[in-house]
Amino acid sequence: MRTYLDCFPCFLNQALRAARIATDDEEKIKKVLDEVGMMIRDIPLESTPPESARLIYHKIGEITGNLDPYREIKSESTQKALSLYSCLKSHVEKSNDSLLAAIRIAIAGNVIDFGANWDFDLNVEVAEILDKDFAILDYNEFKDRFNEAHEILYIGDNAGECVFDRILIEEMKKPVIYVVRDVPIINDATYEDAEQAGIDKVATILSSGTDAPGTIFKTCSAEFKKVYNNSRFIISKGQGNYEALSNEMGPIFFLLKVKCHVIANNIGVDKGDIVLKAKQRSTR
Amino acid sequence: MRTYLDCFPCFLNQALRAARIATDDEEKIKKVLDEVGMMIRDIPLESTPPESARLIYHKIGEITGNLDPYREIKSESTQKALSLYSCLKSHVEKSNDSLLAAIRIAIAGNVIDFGANWDFDLNVEVAEILDKDFAILDYNEFKDRFNEAHEILYIGDNAGECVFDRILIEEMKKPVIYVVRDVPIINDATYEDAEQAGIDKVATILSSGTDAPGTIFKTCSAEFKKVYNNSRFIISKGQGNYEALSNEMGPIFFLLKVKCHVIANNIGVDKGDIVLKAKQRSTR
Repeated sequence: MRTYLDCFPCFLNQALRAARIATDDEEKIKKVLDEVGMMIRDIPLESTPPESARLIYHKIGEITGNLDPYREIKSESTQKALSLYSCLKSHVEKSNDSLLAAIRIAIAGNVIDFGANWDFDLNVEVAEILDKDFAILDYNEFKDRFNEAHEILYIGDNAGECVFDRILIEEMKKPVIYVVRDVPIINDATYEDAEQAGIDKVATILSSGTDAPGTIFKTCSAEFKKVYNNSRFIISKGQGNYEALSNEMGPIFFLLKVKCHVIANNIGVDKGDIVLKAKQRSTR
Repeated sequence: MRTYLDCFPCFLNQALRAARIATDDEEKIKKVLDEVGMMIRDIPLESTPPESARLIYHKIGEITGNLDPYREIKSESTQKALSLYSCLKSHVEKSNDSLLAAIRIAIAGNVIDFGANWDFDLNVEVAEILDKDFAILDYNEFKDRFNEAHEILYIGDNAGECVFDRILIEEMKKPVIYVVRDVPIINDATYEDAEQAGIDKVATILSSGTDAPGTIFKTCSAEFKKVYNNSRFIISKGQGNYEALSNEMGPIFFLLKVKCHVIANNIGVDKGDIVLKAKQRSTR
């Protein structure tokens, strides 16, 4: 997905929020705003938003000296999500369509996003999503592809959200490769975060090699790209991965909660909607 | 009032909105964002927000070639406000305390602000404010000063809002000098806008000489500054004037609806609150 004009004020807002988490020093925070302001002219509308977010969050690290401002928040998110695990499991078990229920739970976990979101009550949002209609639900395509698949490539998004992903992984009962970011960026899940969520017990964890808050191919490792290109069934979680992969080759199933107007307009749904959107291999 | 860190993303947001009104050319709008982004490092936290807004809106005019993008919107606001005039007048006449009712109406008109606001329904917001409690109501001081005053300096804010100001001016029944911006900036009231609202029938209209969206002294004319310094009773409408004048000498009465968290925190109230706040001559 390209960068839209509305992404620019959002970049500055994200930079301010992240800088405030990274430091209390107002001068350093102002310096972050100065530098991010100057970066705007070098951000082409043709680039994907996570490409720019990558550079912006790196700049925040450079100025504040804090390379992982969301470390504590990530760990808290995982603990909070783990406390919901049994309840969510029993929700799946009681459902008429347990696969769809688990997909819905995986999307519910996508509210834990400190890039696009800020104020959210996990319990409230999860409860809402469990009752919400899908704006796009390519479930038949998902099931057809899923039934044929021998292995699933599951591209994770945020820490904490991994716990919700684990429920879908457990429900799918097929071998899963679970993809994480290579290093900390915003609250995105790294190897450590996935491990804390217990993903290592149910899947093989693989780093995409990227240091961006989205799976931007040119920043990914050769190993990941090989795995991706050989995959017959890919699940992509969240906005950052959608933004990075929406123009890449399928077959991908995008699972996300739409948290901003820009992505809502791009997909053709409303902000707040939940989506299971298929993209076939042949389209780009 | 100083510039807070949260003002910077807001500046970029305002620039985007204004540029979109000024032009449909996406390249020019991106150029506005580029240039405003680069201006951030030159904006000190010690400056007042309207000082920077002035430079930003000038830049938008320079890039888009449209020096008065809000011209049509301003005229529509005035027509809309004029259509409410009789109804608002009869509201004042029916009130137990007609002066306070007229003050409340003048504040209600302050919702017409395309800098801080965007989506608002005038009728709904006005109805809400007529029923709302004041967060700060220095009404006794206002009445004491008002009773002593021979003349009132009334610093206007936005086009459309002038119609609401007219109701307060009519209720005060004393000579009023009504201050407008010298040239168009955002949807702020100029001489022409005040005239369209009928202010010329009830007050002497005076330009402050400024081309900023707030009464920033260093951009004002010598004539206005002389009038200001000799005034014994000053009414200042809206956020832009509050930001510009909150550190200047009183006696000023600030009448405004608080439309952003930054100003809410500065005043010590909540966003959405309405305020009649006194500032005496001796304090700075």
